[in-house]
Amino acid sequence: MKHQILGSQVKTWQPQFSDEGCARDASILKASAAIGRSCETIPLGTGRPSPEFYPWKSIGTEKSPLGRAVGNADDGSAATETHKRATGAYDFGELLGYGPAAGSPELLTFFKEHVELIHNPPYEAWETCLTCGSTSALEILLRLLCNRGDWIVTEAFTYSGTIEASRPLGLKLLGVEMDDEGMMPEDLDLKLSTWDPSQGRKPSVLYTIPCGHNPTGITQPTHRREAIYEVARSHDLCIIEDDPYFFLHLDGDQLAGSDLNQAKQDPIQNYLAALPTSYLSLDLDGRVVRLETASKILAPGLRCGWMTACHEVVARFLNHTEFSTTEPSGPSQLMMYQLLGEQWGHKGLLLWLIQLSSKYSQRLNILAEACRLHLPSELCSWVIPSKGMFLWIRLRASNLTIDHIQRERNGKTDVVSTLENMIYVNARNKGVQINKGSWFAVAGDSQGDICFRLTYAAAPEEALDMAAQKIAESIRECIM
Amino acid sequence: MKHQILGSQVKTWQPQFSDEGCARDASILKASAAIGRSCETIPLGTGRPSPEFYPWKSIGTEKSPLGRAVGNADDGSAATETHKRATGAYDFGELLGYGPAAGSPELLTFFKEHVELIHNPPYEAWETCLTCGSTSALEILLRLLCNRGDWIVTEAFTYSGTIEASRPLGLKLLGVEMDDEGMMPEDLDLKLSTWDPSQGRKPSVLYTIPCGHNPTGITQPTHRREAIYEVARSHDLCIIEDDPYFFLHLDGDQLAGSDLNQAKQDPIQNYLAALPTSYLSLDLDGRVVRLETASKILAPGLRCGWMTACHEVVARFLNHTEFSTTEPSGPSQLMMYQLLGEQWGHKGLLLWLIQLSSKYSQRLNILAEACRLHLPSELCSWVIPSKGMFLWIRLRASNLTIDHIQRERNGKTDVVSTLENMIYVNARNKGVQINKGSWFAVAGDSQGDICFRLTYAAAPEEALDMAAQKIAESIRECIM
Repeated sequence: MKHQILGSQVKTWQPQFSDEGCARDASILKASAAIGRSCETIPLGTGRPSPEFYPWKSIGTEKSPLGRAVGNADDGSAATETHKRATGAYDFGELLGYGPAAGSPELLTFFKEHVELIHNPPYEAWETCLTCGSTSALEILLRLLCNRGDWIVTEAFTYSGTIEASRPLGLKLLGVEMDDEGMMPEDLDLKLSTWDPSQGRKPSVLYTIPCGHNPTGITQPTHRREAIYEVARSHDLCIIEDDPYFFLHLDGDQLAGSDLNQAKQDPIQNYLAALPTSYLSLDLDGRVVRLETASKILAPGLRCGWMTACHEVVARFLNHTEFSTTEPSGPSQLMMYQLLGEQWGHKGLLLWLIQLSSKYSQRLNILAEACRLHLPSELCSWVIPSKGMFLWIRLRASNLTIDHIQRERNGKTDVVSTLENMIYVNARNKGVQINKGSWFAVAGDSQGDICFRLTYAAAPEEALDMAAQKIAESIRECIM
Repeated sequence: MKHQILGSQVKTWQPQFSDEGCARDASILKASAAIGRSCETIPLGTGRPSPEFYPWKSIGTEKSPLGRAVGNADDGSAATETHKRATGAYDFGELLGYGPAAGSPELLTFFKEHVELIHNPPYEAWETCLTCGSTSALEILLRLLCNRGDWIVTEAFTYSGTIEASRPLGLKLLGVEMDDEGMMPEDLDLKLSTWDPSQGRKPSVLYTIPCGHNPTGITQPTHRREAIYEVARSHDLCIIEDDPYFFLHLDGDQLAGSDLNQAKQDPIQNYLAALPTSYLSLDLDGRVVRLETASKILAPGLRCGWMTACHEVVARFLNHTEFSTTEPSGPSQLMMYQLLGEQWGHKGLLLWLIQLSSKYSQRLNILAEACRLHLPSELCSWVIPSKGMFLWIRLRASNLTIDHIQRERNGKTDVVSTLENMIYVNARNKGVQINKGSWFAVAGDSQGDICFRLTYAAAPEEALDMAAQKIAESIRECIM
């Protein structure tokens, strides 16, 4: 029945792939992280939360009567019967079956309440649904909102995953200038007002990361958001608000009490008052699609997030979901509901977020202090972020002398990207994983500066000082 | 900070949607099942396994040290500390983090061994990766392999989800004639040999459901598969083998012992010998992409499956995955690994599948006997399936007298679809959910017959006889 013909000629698939398939390259961040992991590197690259920041430690299951009847001889029933727990109002069978694309009603209700509590969208017909994480949700949105050849507007630097997700879909990105408050509304308006139709259809989708911006760490102040919203209105742009870092507030030390179980009203009120005004909460005409995720505040492996938008968008999003991801994982939903719905409630979630923010603040402080001590101040500059996971280090290209340019090896004229790569490789060889700024540049280069994105989320606290030392060495060896 | 303007004018999104977005309609099966669920209906429609067929009964979690520190006053620590279990070699932190798109190494190793054990692909460079279920995997494959406007070849009847997933992608389906052994290689060859290029690019993708075919229940015998593989070779078709029902073998009564814990060698050997020869195990030149899923043999809510193909396909599939689903849920993977890798092993999984097959056989026998007793034999015919979840009931249109046609209400000439709808609605009103054959017809109609798909997977055993009685009444009232 079975053949085994060694060395048989395997069909060549290349001519079979679609335009999209041909453009499906590997993720640059994942590839870079994989190199890092194989050689005991300090990971300041990918924004992966450290496992100590997940609220769960383990998971156990109890077998069903039918499941208990099966096993091989070595598998005693003691090993199969690990845990018994009443799941309360939650129907475990429903969760292991095919569920609603929008998520199970119980968990969805929690997130609807959460969105109302935090954002209180100013129009009536908003809806919230669960997603299989923001990466998945963004992919679906881009497909629903854009045809091949269309342009979308983003910050001049944006999450590399968004750049890489857009390309195989045949989308082009238009980067808007940024200052210390993020995307500049004047440049957005200018680019749209002077749009040359020979480039393609005028963009109708604005993608922004308004809090703890990836990669620059910038958080747009409210007046900036209001100005951008007005520009979006005047050009009838819809806004995809990708906001994974909204809750990671980096003045956490001042917010969290020393003992969170003795929660007083104040820390929560302080924390709520310090949260930014989301685009969703400014959204008078239902033009915002807000993406949120459990990845940065609970655990990435859940592959679960939530999305809020007007009915028309959510309905099509769910129709798409039914023929792609189908629904978020039942076990993931159950874990989230047991924690959020049955145990923590909204107040408990906020206390968790305050504590998490405090932990990230600690780490940021350690890394920022290490950078202050070790990085060459005549070359490097950075702004301490108030949100998120990233510190953006900028080396002014104008500070680079002709000597540095002469040291450039292979005769290419692009000194900036050559030096960026030299520093990146040098740091990696010294055991520190950092991310190149150009990976996040919509235009493909960092516009004259050499930039690096550092995260304080993944590495152990005690490794952060050493990491900054190694980065400083890497820079000095390449430039000075 | 927050606005609340009631009755504000919400933006109209219709002009914003892409070609794909405009075509994103709701799933016909899901919509139909939703109606069914709201009114105490016997569900013979959607192929949802009954919860008693899942191997797990409950799931519990233990909080991490950081998670334990948080909670509101009402939440005693006893309630948060539900379960403790050593996860053995499996790193729980890794599973809650961002993991490899192909799945965690431990679980992936299990499925690679499983594929080798069951299918032993006859070329060297095959690879297996996990998927977020076959619906998700198929969507990705269609995007990787087809451009808008392309044709794919399927059975003349096929899974409605595949029909509905293809349309928004701009794909057209070419249905190949079927007989009692499934897709006919002569018709496949004829359609491709006489392909008219003015219709579009000649199809290069063949999609087939070879076991317990959805909706007809047919299982292709080995000689049929060999013939189809040869035609695929001669036209350089790649084959997507969508095989969720491979392991649901409906002669299970003969295979399973009364006490599975006293497993002898014989039941497993008998079961393995009765499994069909997959296209993958015939695949000399790496043209087959085999999709398998945990949905029909463990639980659909896991949203996890596995795919086997040559390296070129798997590599691009994983690149796509990184910018869409990212990876299957960590908790789902952990549950599967605890069960399959740590407890059951390959032998335990086979014993489970034997037992599950036996349960489905029982149910099929009950439904088939009920149909034999109640359905009008002069009108209805069916073939008892040897695999899967579906019984396909065919009403010969040639048996319908002119009386039936005169009873047709709205003056439409399409008597067949009118009668089909009348019977469907009549059954639903009597409390039985069945699926219309035309939903699965690639050409949009059932080619002269009225057909219905019944599943014995979802309804309680004791309801199956009553369901058949109601269906018989529904048919008689509409036709006789």
